[in-house]
This record gives sequence, structure tokens and C-alpha cells, in this order.
Amino acid sequence: MKNYTTLADIDNLETIIREARGLKFENPDTKAGEGKTLGMLFFNPSLRTRLSTEKAAKLLGMHVMVMNADKDGWALEFEDGAVMNSDKAEHIKEAAAVLSQYCDIIAVRAFPGLKDKEKDESELVLNSFKKYASVPVVNLESATGHPLQALADAITIQEHNTAEKPKIVLSWAPHPKALPQSVANSFVEMVHRLDVDFVITNPEGYDLNPAVRKDIKVEHDQEKAFKDADFVYVKNWSSYEDYGQVLNVEKNWIVNQEKLKHTNNAKVMHCLPVRRNVVIADDVLDSENSIVIQQANNRTFAAQAVLKRLLESLDA
Amino acid sequence: MKNYTTLADIDNLETIIREARGLKFENPDTKAGEGKTLGMLFFNPSLRTRLSTEKAAKLLGMHVMVMNADKDGWALEFEDGAVMNSDKAEHIKEAAAVLSQYCDIIAVRAFPGLKDKEKDESELVLNSFKKYASVPVVNLESATGHPLQALADAITIQEHNTAEKPKIVLSWAPHPKALPQSVANSFVEMVHRLDVDFVITNPEGYDLNPAVRKDIKVEHDQEKAFKDADFVYVKNWSSYEDYGQVLNVEKNWIVNQEKLKHTNNAKVMHCLPVRRNVVIADDVLDSENSIVIQQANNRTFAAQAVLKRLLESLDA
Amino acid sequence: MKNYTTLADIDNLETIIREARGLKFENPDTKAGEGKTLGMLFFNPSLRTRLSTEKAAKLLGMHVMVMNADKDGWALEFEDGAVMNSDKAEHIKEAAAVLSQYCDIIAVRAFPGLKDKEKDESELVLNSFKKYASVPVVNLESATGHPLQALADAITIQEHNTAEKPKIVLSWAPHPKALPQSVANSFVEMVHRLDVDFVITNPEGYDLNPAVRKDIKVEHDQEKAFKDADFVYVKNWSSYEDYGQVLNVEKNWIVNQEKLKHTNNAKVMHCLPVRRNVVIADDVLDSENSIVIQQANNRTFAAQAVLKRLLESLDA
Repeated sequence: MKNYTTLADIDNLETIIREARGLKFENPDTKAGEGKTLGMLFFNPSLRTRLSTEKAAKLLGMHVMVMNADKDGWALEFEDGAVMNSDKAEHIKEAAAVLSQYCDIIAVRAFPGLKDKEKDESELVLNSFKKYASVPVVNLESATGHPLQALADAITIQEHNTAEKPKIVLSWAPHPKALPQSVANSFVEMVHRLDVDFVITNPEGYDLNPAVRKDIKVEHDQEKAFKDADFVYVKNWSSYEDYGQVLNVEKNWIVNQEKLKHTNNAKVMHCLPVRRNVVIADDVLDSENSIVIQQANNRTFAAQAVLKRLLESLDA
Repeated sequence: MKNYTTLADIDNLETIIREARGLKFENPDTKAGEGKTLGMLFFNPSLRTRLSTEKAAKLLGMHVMVMNADKDGWALEFEDGAVMNSDKAEHIKEAAAVLSQYCDIIAVRAFPGLKDKEKDESELVLNSFKKYASVPVVNLESATGHPLQALADAITIQEHNTAEKPKIVLSWAPHPKALPQSVANSFVEMVHRLDVDFVITNPEGYDLNPAVRKDIKVEHDQEKAFKDADFVYVKNWSSYEDYGQVLNVEKNWIVNQEKLKHTNNAKVMHCLPVRRNVVIADDVLDSENSIVIQQANNRTFAAQAVLKRLLESLDA
Repeated sequence: MKNYTTLADIDNLETIIREARGLKFENPDTKAGEGKTLGMLFFNPSLRTRLSTEKAAKLLGMHVMVMNADKDGWALEFEDGAVMNSDKAEHIKEAAAVLSQYCDIIAVRAFPGLKDKEKDESELVLNSFKKYASVPVVNLESATGHPLQALADAITIQEHNTAEKPKIVLSWAPHPKALPQSVANSFVEMVHRLDVDFVITNPEGYDLNPAVRKDIKVEHDQEKAFKDADFVYVKNWSSYEDYGQVLNVEKNWIVNQEKLKHTNNAKVMHCLPVRRNVVIADDVLDSENSIVIQQANNRTFAAQAVLKRLLESLDA
């Protein structure tokens, strides 16, 4: 593994899940990262990703340096050939090259603007770091993907699955703000690689990027989609077709116990933070059906497995 | 010790003072915290508490992760059953449970609003963490108490005391802003457990919460209170009766050398930061009477003793 | 070495360059700083200085605590005898003394205001820390100097020099904002101690402080200055004579390949961040002439050598 910017960087999902669970249950304070430094750069806020990745690195013996990109340092210019005479003090070419001098691995969080689909899909920030850094780059959630979350999701599904071929539903949920499609995208990419029944359910107008969905069925009737589900993965995203917009939706798509009745006593997942009684009801989050905390816990081991792989590639 | 949210969590003050002083004078770089993580969450600014607690944890071999709660992460909802459709992105139930996955001990600073006495006394933030976290919680100064400061104060008094039964005066001092009663409250709770003469002196209208003061005498005449004092602990607080208000006070309550003449060459303490020539005069802070720096130094060892106790409870 | 606030704190430049290069090429994970704490205090933003110094300290085994001075903590009062009844919550006397309890070395960044020459030249912040701290103080760029940068520059020049007595040109460059003279000042002070040909070139009105320049020639014709140069060090600074002002300059002083033709295929240096196509053109920064990334890398080893010296002075 040379970088971890997309789920496609994992060649064998089963193997890395096994490695992550090994790190979870055996003594995790290994020496794999001793004397090595992880630099974490945040263009957006973060709680779980920040803390779980920092913890993962420290459990591997790494030094960790955290930067709030625009607040602690300088605004960055990403355009090639720009005449930098206004507010951007540093070009990504220098920033990425310099960080590569101080860090053995660079991790970056950069959300989409949700205004310009093409620009967001170009993954300017993440790909610029990949292009100009001379060390491995990790995606801490970018414009279109959140592969560390997806790996934690895969670990969590494996840990809680009791069916031979479970049914997994990805269910859109309401939210007052326009949110990225990144978590949903990476979840879909991940589930493509599992031997499961998979359905996506969302209101019309909210179908995910067809290039990500591929042959996965979208069921616009939530109740029908939930039938016999073993896992319900709840997440809001803004419209892809009407890019970045929050559309008017007639029915309430919240996930509550009433709706879980149609499922096979499904385990309910969410990447967090979750708005209670808007996205998921208290009666689900406070029940045995919810595995959101266990899922958050697996963020540490997903990050640890990825960092360990990247550290091994440094020595290779 | 299961948590350290109030001084009452210490069963034997003498014993923990002895432990703290042991950590101060023997090699403090112990291994008690190896592989363990302290998460520090700040809802308000901090210098001494932040650095001394971080240092204490690192001296114990712990990893430390620091978060400025609202700036780095998400605004939290504390109300049970809330429909989270406005500005709060995450509920304390998830935040505390998730932090408990990443951290072995959680430390929280959350000041009072000083608008609503009942709300402040409910200690919503601290008690919510205590309720929903599955790991020990440390109070880094809450709405009504600052027990890490009080423990450092106790160590400092023991180190500088030469009298058999010293006289300690807690003296209110002027300040341009409305400040919490938390430092004064915890100091009073701590002194209750010492074998000393104790007087509180403050202007009328500034009497501390009777439930905290209990039988401690309040002397409204500062000069009388100072008579033969061995220690003068200076601190401003806003009114408890006229809750959170800064009242008009006729006489100047600043502590200066003129006033110390009435004392037994008293040692002067303050939790810092201190506004010079408003709260305490230069002629005291720059004199041998001041032990505010030694007091600040003891913050490290107070925190270290508390963290060590909590680490031991993890293993138990 | 008792402090590192100015280049004059280095008694033998050659020796410390050798030490820094030793740390660069031998295993740098030494134990010199074990159990010791570096406190870094930023009154201004920082990327390279922050990360390289943090990394240097960690490579020496030190604990590192980072504070954004005004954002995380309290506004500081520097005036002696001030009656602190407005917005400053803590006096530098207490702040420096308390930090000295928690940190074995204190590092401070504090830029000039560029409004009042005398005030900036008094180096109030840095000198106050030096005065009131009881531990060594490191300058992370102050009002008038950036000695860690200058040491990294010296290492870089030595690494890339092939001439017996190289010609070094310090060239002013345009910039949309008023910048400090600190980097240029410390560079000049450093070059004074090398056996080289040295020319400063800048537009009229931009001559550096004569007390720093001493006998160094200022050539107002950039092309003439560049003739046969082995190193061109590019940097903007605001006017010293017309203090802190950005003056109208007729000719374009950008450094590009066209101008490098006059040099001896000069190596081009800059402390970064650099505004591309304003200060230095893409055709230089993207060419073999640029050694700005190698120069940034040497920040780590300059900081490491300085910290190691200061750690040794602690034990002495």
C-alpha cells in the first residue's frame, strides 16, 4: 500500500480486516512506528477521525503532529501557475514537499464545497497532496470519500454478522444541513467487495453517483428496503443530481423502532456525529439494535491497520 | 478513586498529599500510564490546567490528546430527548461514549454561564460526561468547583506551613469581570478537612454558597480577618446571592503590603492568572510573601497523583 | 548556550553546523531530552517552525506542549507596574515563571507590529520571557530576528557549496503585504561569520538596519548584484527607513530564470512560505536551481542542534 486515499488502495479487504482485528485484540502497543512521524492536516473540524487516528499512530509508537490548516498556518494556493498576489501565502507544491520532510506519513481532511460537482470530484486538495508529497498520503475524509470510515464499517459488520449472507441496507436520512456524499460513497464501494445482499434506499432525487453505485439497486420505498435487513446503515447526504442541494422530501425518513420492525432485528450503524430524533430516534440509539459506539471504536483499529501497512511500505 | 470531579472523591487528603509530594521529589517518569491515553476536552481557555495536566500525564507515560471542544470538533447537545435539528451536531451520549473508546481517562473543563444558578449548580456538562462516559472523568474546573486546584493548594500549604495550627484567610479581591465561585468553593471544601483556623473575608453581598461554607465564619472586615494570618488566599468571585453579578463595593479589597502588616508575615496564594495591582499589588507579588509560582508548580503533582490513582482503579 | 534568542548565542558557527549535520545523518532518535519538556508558545501562525521544532524535540525524546498564546490561553500584559483592569488577564512575570515550572525549555514566536520601530527593536515579548523565565528561551522568530532559520540557512549553504569562496546575494523581492525584516536580519548576521563574498541587493528605500548590515555592500542594481552569484537568497521585507511601509518600486524584483542567467547557475534559497510568480517565478522554483525544500528540511536539524545544546546546559 503506497497511499490510502480510496478504498481501492486495499487489495484484499479480508486480509486487512483480519490485521485490524489482530491489532484490536492483541497488545496494540507495537513498535512498528517508532521514530516515525504522522502529520495530520485538518481543513475541516473532526472529533472521531482526529482522535482515533492520533491514537492509532501513538499505539504504533509514532510521533503525531496535528495542524488546523488554515487556523494555525497559512492559506494554501492549489492552482498551477497562479500569480500569488492576494490572500494565499503558500502553494501546495511547497506545503506538501515541506511536510514530506517533517512527516513520514501525511493525513489530510478536506471536505467538498458542494457547489461545483466537477471541482469536488477532482479531489483537488487530496490529489494535490498525493501529487506533491514524497511520502504516503492518508484520506481523513475528502470531497468524495471516507475510506478509513468504510474500513471501520467493514470490521464492525464482520464482528456483528451472524447470517451466512446478510442483508445490508444503506438508508438515507433527513438532516438540516447539506452534507457530503463521501461516507455513503465509500460505504458503497466497500460493500461491493462483500458477499452480501445490498440495497440502497433514499428519496427520489437523492440517488448516489451512478459511477459509485454501479449495479446496486436503489429502492425508493424505505419500508420495502428494510424488509428482513440484518444491518441498516443510516446516513444523510445532499443530492448528487441537483448537486449539493437539500431537496423537499414528503415522507419522514428518520430511522426508529417502528421502522425496524420490518427488519430482521437489524443492527443499526452510523458514522457519527448523529442528530438524535432527526436522523435516528432515541428509541433506536438507546437500544441494543444500535452498534454506533462499537463502530466508532473500530475507527482506531482501521487506522492502525492502514498506518501499519504504510509504515511497512516505507521500509520496503 | 473512580472519578475526580469533586474534592469529595478523595477519601484521605493526607495520603494523596503524601503521594503527590512523593511524585514531586522522586523520579516522576514512572511507567504507571504506559499505553494509556488521557483525553482533555476544553470548553473554555486554559493555560496552567492544560499544561500541568498534560505534563503530569506524560510524566506518567500516558499519551495525551487535547481538544478545544467547540473549535476543533462539533457543538454538543446535552438535553435528553432533544430533536437535534438546529446547531448542535452531536449529543453528549455519543460524544462521551465515543471518547471512552479512545481515551482511558477523560478530563473536562466547562465554566459556568453565571446567568442561571440552578443550571450552573446542576453541573450539566461535567455530570453528563460522568453519566455517559465509561471511563474515569476528571474535573479541569467546572461550574462550581476546581478540585485539582484545591489539591495543589493543600500541597502548597503543607509545604510552606511552619505553625502548629496555622490561620488561613480566604480573601475576596476586586476584578473587572464576573468570575465563577469554583476556585473559592473547592478551596473552602479542602480547608474544611485541615486542622487549621479558617476565616473567609469578603464584602457584604459576596458570601459564598452556605452549603459550601457550612460553619465557616465570614468576616466582612478584611483588616480584622487578616490579623495574625499565616496564609492569605486571594481570589475574586462574583456574587452568589445576586447570582453572577459584580456588585458595587466601597472599600478597595486589593491585597498589598500595607494590609499584610496585620498578618503573621503571611504567605500569599492565588490560583492565577492574577491581575496585578487590581487583585494583588506588585509589592506583594514581587515579595517573599508570594508563593503563587510554587503553588502553580504543584498543579503538576496534584494532577499526577490524581491520574495515578485513577490509573490504578482501571487495573483494579 | 544559555538561550537561543539571537545568532550571537552561538559561539562557534562551524561547530554547531557540524553537530546539526551529525544529527541529520546519524540515527537522530537520541535520548538527550528524555523526561524533559519543550513548551512552544505562538503569538503568530507557523507551519515550518512549529513542525520542525516539534519534530526536533521529539527526535531528542522530549515531551512537547504547544500553545496558541492568545487563542488557547489568556492575553498577556507586558508593562511593568500596569494596573490590570482591562483586557489583559495575566502578566508576563507570572506567565513566564509558571511556564518555567512546567517546561524545561520555552520557545516563543512573536512577530513585530511594524508600526513602531523602537518598540519592535525592544523585542518586548522575547526579552520579557528571557527576563522572567527561569529556563532557556528559544526564538521561533521575533520582531527583529529568526536565528533558527539562519542556522538552517548556514547548514544548507555548506551542503550545497562547491566554490572555495562562494558569492552570496541576498535579494529583496516584491510582496503584497508588509513583512518583518527578521529573516533578512538573521541571515545577514549569519553570513557575517562565513568566509564568503556577500552582497545585499534591494530597491532604494529598502536598505536594512545599518547596525545589522555593518560593512556589507548594498547594490541597488539587482542585475549587477547577481553577477557570478553562487547563492541567491530571496526574501521580501518592508522598509526599515520608512518603517514598516511597502514602498512604490518601479522595476520588478521577482527572481526568475532570466535573471539567474547573470549568476554562476546559482542555487536559490527562500525561507518559505513563498508566493510563486510574485517573489520567485515557477521557472526557478520548479528547477534544479531551487534548494528551498532542502533548506526547509534543515530546519529540523538546526532546531535539534540548538535544543541539544540547551539540554546540555540544563545538566551542567
